[in-house]
Amino acid sequence: MNIDGKHYRTIWLKEDDPTVVQIIDQRPLPHKFLIEDLKTVAQVAAAIRDMHIRGAGLVGATAGFGMYIAALNARKDMPFMDQLVAAGEQLKATRPTAVNLAWAVERQLKAIAAVDGDITAKIAKAKETALAIADEDADFCRRIGEHGVKIIEEISKAKNGAVVNILTHCNAGWLAFVDYGSATAPMYAAHDKGIKIHVWVDETRPRNQGARLTAWELGQHGVPHTVIADNVGGHLMQHGLVDLVITGTDRTTYTGDVGNKIGTYLKALAAKDNHVPFYTALPSSTFDWDIRDGVKEIPIEQREGEEVKYIQGMHAGEMVSVLLTPENSPAANYAFDVTPARLVTGLITERGICEASEDGILGLYPEKKKS
Amino acid sequence: MNIDGKHYRTIWLKEDDPTVVQIIDQRPLPHKFLIEDLKTVAQVAAAIRDMHIRGAGLVGATAGFGMYIAALNARKDMPFMDQLVAAGEQLKATRPTAVNLAWAVERQLKAIAAVDGDITAKIAKAKETALAIADEDADFCRRIGEHGVKIIEEISKAKNGAVVNILTHCNAGWLAFVDYGSATAPMYAAHDKGIKIHVWVDETRPRNQGARLTAWELGQHGVPHTVIADNVGGHLMQHGLVDLVITGTDRTTYTGDVGNKIGTYLKALAAKDNHVPFYTALPSSTFDWDIRDGVKEIPIEQREGEEVKYIQGMHAGEMVSVLLTPENSPAANYAFDVTPARLVTGLITERGICEASEDGILGLYPEKKKS
Repeated sequence: MNIDGKHYRTIWLKEDDPTVVQIIDQRPLPHKFLIEDLKTVAQVAAAIRDMHIRGAGLVGATAGFGMYIAALNARKDMPFMDQLVAAGEQLKATRPTAVNLAWAVERQLKAIAAVDGDITAKIAKAKETALAIADEDADFCRRIGEHGVKIIEEISKAKNGAVVNILTHCNAGWLAFVDYGSATAPMYAAHDKGIKIHVWVDETRPRNQGARLTAWELGQHGVPHTVIADNVGGHLMQHGLVDLVITGTDRTTYTGDVGNKIGTYLKALAAKDNHVPFYTALPSSTFDWDIRDGVKEIPIEQREGEEVKYIQGMHAGEMVSVLLTPENSPAANYAFDVTPARLVTGLITERGICEASEDGILGLYPEKKKS
Repeated sequence: MNIDGKHYRTIWLKEDDPTVVQIIDQRPLPHKFLIEDLKTVAQVAAAIRDMHIRGAGLVGATAGFGMYIAALNARKDMPFMDQLVAAGEQLKATRPTAVNLAWAVERQLKAIAAVDGDITAKIAKAKETALAIADEDADFCRRIGEHGVKIIEEISKAKNGAVVNILTHCNAGWLAFVDYGSATAPMYAAHDKGIKIHVWVDETRPRNQGARLTAWELGQHGVPHTVIADNVGGHLMQHGLVDLVITGTDRTTYTGDVGNKIGTYLKALAAKDNHVPFYTALPSSTFDWDIRDGVKEIPIEQREGEEVKYIQGMHAGEMVSVLLTPENSPAANYAFDVTPARLVTGLITERGICEASEDGILGLYPEKKKS
């Protein structure tokens, strides 16, 4: 998508030196826009571990590029593939629960090992595979946009072209993928088609991914939006100010239960209570084909209470962290919740839109049916 | 309630000089505990206007004391009652929508005007009335506690004495009244009786009254509590970690619709979805006897978006304000929402507990029946 009118992805090869990987360092956003060069596996590992980049799709793509860098930098006095396996282990250790990370490393190892040629040919293959992983991620998100935009288009028509108000939670935007995003892809597609939209951006406490990242990327691309406290969505829906909710997801069961950033469940309840359609957008890699009951079985990460007690922001040109609570009051920090399928109107995937149910999902992904 | 083991109200006459009114300046809480002397009507007006104190009950009590100070400070070369009427106007202008403020001023004017004696007798009456207003506020809250504690006691028995987990939103604590609070009164009563409780404190964005004030007052009184982001309550309820919700209210219709801090509606939806009892505690002065449909008719204050974009906290020993969003992203700031009566299990008033319905409420307040 665009930043200051120029098209960017979240990761790419440097234009005049394709041995350097470049990323947007997301930590100082929205206050500073910094591009970072990655030239060594250690730098790539640090970028993932210390969250210069985050988001399922982007973590996978970054690991893919990391393996290309490992191939480029391999020493000639040591076995080539051994070094790549070691680099893969180093990358996988940075965020052990990220499914896409391990998947990208394994895909690279297989592709490179299969090359019947010299090291130059293997490096070329690693580069080609890294670019393919990134392109596929962007392509899946683009297709989510193509399918999802139809929902927005219909609402727009029903409103005779009046502004369609969409509420989103957290950042399932292009900063979490290589381009387009999942939840945001239909919004960008609608905006680019000239459909009038306005996005209510939940700030998404405690880490404020909405207020920091979603607001920034929508603003940069020129999409009208308004930041709101997480408490506000229900009131807006009661008063007809939300036409549609679209969220992303970290894990969705094959029965349609949606695991996503804490607070998603509350918005889904309000949507149901006010007959507002509630959609979740996801590439199919986010489905969990083994879990039936999301509320009972999706593990919910508990993070440090300090993330609730302190918050970072800009003060006098500097990022500072301020204490919000009494110093001695404990805080709990559940990072995700699960929205039962009964509250989800539908899922927007790269293959199309389906009901949030076993039948709906397996209808789009029949190869996943268990015999 | 107690601060560092010593009993305080939120407003009182100075022990060694009853011509001075003392309040807790709530602005630097929870980081600093400051007592402020009020000796002139201008100081009282500033304390109300600039929110050194806030909360329906406390605003009323402060206005009552303000009229006593006006009587004390009246010039002898001007008509006494004219000066009091002018002071009353000055006080009422500070927060024009606060019902209790005007009510306290009028009560004082009537009481003082009715005194058949000299100025000394009138001053004595103003002092007596100010103390009576404060005492009545505290007494109503104490009675709310006596009624509400029965609900907690029952849950405690059903759990064989295991900890009762109560969730609350915003600050309907003793800092909003003269003592005890409304939503917190049953909690303090339970704690003081030795019933094991633990309170989940919603931080209550954007002004964080929960994280700042409720956490502080519960902590000072020794009540176990945990601060959570406003997004968390639904997840906790899904997993059986909330036994009871108690909130306050800014205005409740005689049909049982509850206007309260933005986000209350989302918690009520989650409580309903998970069969968790949801109670609202209020002195009867908070009922609106004229409004039938709360969602349609209770006016919702929209405040400055800056309150969402910036937040205050403690950094290196100083209170600083930090920017959370992109500088150019707009923010909306709806301050209240309305929870329909169908989601409210019951109301806890100074006269007892009733259903959140016209029949339930008029059963407790039969004198309000319209013929």
